[in-house]
Amino acid sequence: MILAVNTGSASKKYALYGSGAEVFRAHLEEENGKHVVGFRFADKEEKNEITEADYKDAVNFILEKAEELKIIKDRKEIERTGVRIVAPGEYFYSHPRINEEYLHKLKEIEEVAPLHITPVLEELDALIDALPETALISVSDGEFHSTLPEVSYAYAIPRDVANKYGIRRFGYHGISIRSVLREAEKLMGEVPEKIIVCHLGSGASITAVKDGKSFDTTMGLTPLEGLVMGTRVGDIDPGALIYLGEKLGLVYEELGDYLNRQCGLLALSGKTADVRELLELESRGDEGAKLALDVFIYRIKKYIGAFAAGMGGVDALIFTATIGERSYIMRERILAGLEVLGLKIDENKNAATVSAQGFIDNGSGARIAVIPADELGEIAKAAEGAVLT
Amino acid sequence: MILAVNTGSASKKYALYGSGAEVFRAHLEEENGKHVVGFRFADKEEKNEITEADYKDAVNFILEKAEELKIIKDRKEIERTGVRIVAPGEYFYSHPRINEEYLHKLKEIEEVAPLHITPVLEELDALIDALPETALISVSDGEFHSTLPEVSYAYAIPRDVANKYGIRRFGYHGISIRSVLREAEKLMGEVPEKIIVCHLGSGASITAVKDGKSFDTTMGLTPLEGLVMGTRVGDIDPGALIYLGEKLGLVYEELGDYLNRQCGLLALSGKTADVRELLELESRGDEGAKLALDVFIYRIKKYIGAFAAGMGGVDALIFTATIGERSYIMRERILAGLEVLGLKIDENKNAATVSAQGFIDNGSGARIAVIPADELGEIAKAAEGAVLT
Repeated sequence: MILAVNTGSASKKYALYGSGAEVFRAHLEEENGKHVVGFRFADKEEKNEITEADYKDAVNFILEKAEELKIIKDRKEIERTGVRIVAPGEYFYSHPRINEEYLHKLKEIEEVAPLHITPVLEELDALIDALPETALISVSDGEFHSTLPEVSYAYAIPRDVANKYGIRRFGYHGISIRSVLREAEKLMGEVPEKIIVCHLGSGASITAVKDGKSFDTTMGLTPLEGLVMGTRVGDIDPGALIYLGEKLGLVYEELGDYLNRQCGLLALSGKTADVRELLELESRGDEGAKLALDVFIYRIKKYIGAFAAGMGGVDALIFTATIGERSYIMRERILAGLEVLGLKIDENKNAATVSAQGFIDNGSGARIAVIPADELGEIAKAAEGAVLT
Repeated sequence: MILAVNTGSASKKYALYGSGAEVFRAHLEEENGKHVVGFRFADKEEKNEITEADYKDAVNFILEKAEELKIIKDRKEIERTGVRIVAPGEYFYSHPRINEEYLHKLKEIEEVAPLHITPVLEELDALIDALPETALISVSDGEFHSTLPEVSYAYAIPRDVANKYGIRRFGYHGISIRSVLREAEKLMGEVPEKIIVCHLGSGASITAVKDGKSFDTTMGLTPLEGLVMGTRVGDIDPGALIYLGEKLGLVYEELGDYLNRQCGLLALSGKTADVRELLELESRGDEGAKLALDVFIYRIKKYIGAFAAGMGGVDALIFTATIGERSYIMRERILAGLEVLGLKIDENKNAATVSAQGFIDNGSGARIAVIPADELGEIAKAAEGAVLT
């Protein structure tokens, strides 16, 4: 049996796979100070409020539930555990078995992406305690981007400094993109030459995929670059950052925290980072919500254009992740004006495709599809395929 | 008579206009530790090496030359002097007469764009000394961008902080763009609805012009954002900047200096910030030079695509400034693959258009033109049109 783990800053997701099929899924979330869990097993779904203690000790909490449901009898049945790892560095561009050296390297670069690495370090400790005999495998969220050409990954800083400190674009959301491309191949018969994948969740990125390989992507050394996100700033003038840090009297680490947690849609709207709530507020005339959504959408449009220009065209555009899968209104607003790139929406198909897979183009230009991401399934596949040394 | 002044970090340009026509031009440069001046007057051109002292006291040096040539008899003939000002802030979005309050405001924000403001403050002092009776007029390099919509100028930072410190995109190269659009109207009969202007010099930016107004631009609060430039970093992951500052042990001001002076083409090539030299090095197999040029070009392509997507298409693309006007090789490399946006080059016309005005498209899609910028002429026009209060 394989356990797949995806730990975020405000959510923890787990799934168990037997013979490649999902047999149990648990999704824990922190919402407005409350903690909730959703379970899925044997065609059943359950959603309950849980204690903060259970959220913190999520690994044992969900394993006990699986034991209670007789999905596992003995934890030793879980031969492999794959954990999504968001970490910069060429060292993290593969899916190795996690050992002492690996944990040491991960701690070393914790400061670069604390929002992602700090919770996963805690999770790894919990997994080692709870499942001492499982083969613990790092499933790299960057690995898909290991094909990025230098022209896409190089920042214009001195080469010796870039090489010494490993400062370059790495890119993330690779697990999501791999799962989406797997489905795209089934849906389209073959993978088109020039694809743009829009992963739009509370973390958001866009990736240009050329000949099946990552060609360019919006996230950089860290997951802070690119699109405006829930609470992340995305692209900003380097000169503005310096001025901001000086004026607010923040040291670098504090500035990083500020840019990760207090910016993005939350900052533009002044109210919430949640797109559903923003749409609701906007419909009631809230100007901050309108600005947040407009900037979010405009930057997405610009990157779609940028990557179409970078690849010399676009054959298919794919929407995925919460916003991409669920919000037909956001998709419609994103695609408005992109006809010049051959992207033409069918509004009826678009409105009918919510949390489902399907084409939403009008058939006269590039393909446009909604494809739900399955990160846990992809993590399990990667963990299964990892070579244990 | 009107004196137009354009002071950069390594050059000083002056021109005198009588009845709207240029009667004298002086261009001083620092090159590899040497100082040179080029004069143009009455169909003659001169180029000489000068002393560092003459370069420093350029205002008196060029005025004495104009007196010697009998272009002016008395300095009082210079009724107005227009000076290009690169400074962030809505206060600097107009062309006022320079007074004590103005100088005070300019000193207050010197730290935000020291590369541009520090030399101009010295220049203003020199002009006040040398021409005590002239009306000294600030010609804003940002003013053209005062029409930017909020969706283009807003960074995703908290609104109260953005408003308190004036942190937003302002944009620069507006004087160049105005001069180019003036010529474009003559060349094309009318100004097309959707224009992209590529100002490619040692400072470089791209601007989307919709219905004659600035719609989006690559430079931000400061001239550090956007394209890779001679020694400026351009776009970079905010997380990478923070990591870089920490690793190099630089305080914000030092980091700003580093990003302005030690990055860009110079850093990527490890050799030079000069595109002509980079092309020469690349032709001899230099890999650093090739990387620098490839990244520079790729980022330009991406912004052309981004702005085409942002405006919903592009009717005309205009190249200007040193690289845009002179290097047909760079233009050809930039346009390669942009056929998808309707941008199709005529290679013969392109190769034939060097330091000259003309169309270089093949006639089957959007117009593509080379239009030399005339910043000094535009400064003089703005100074002439300024309302003195």
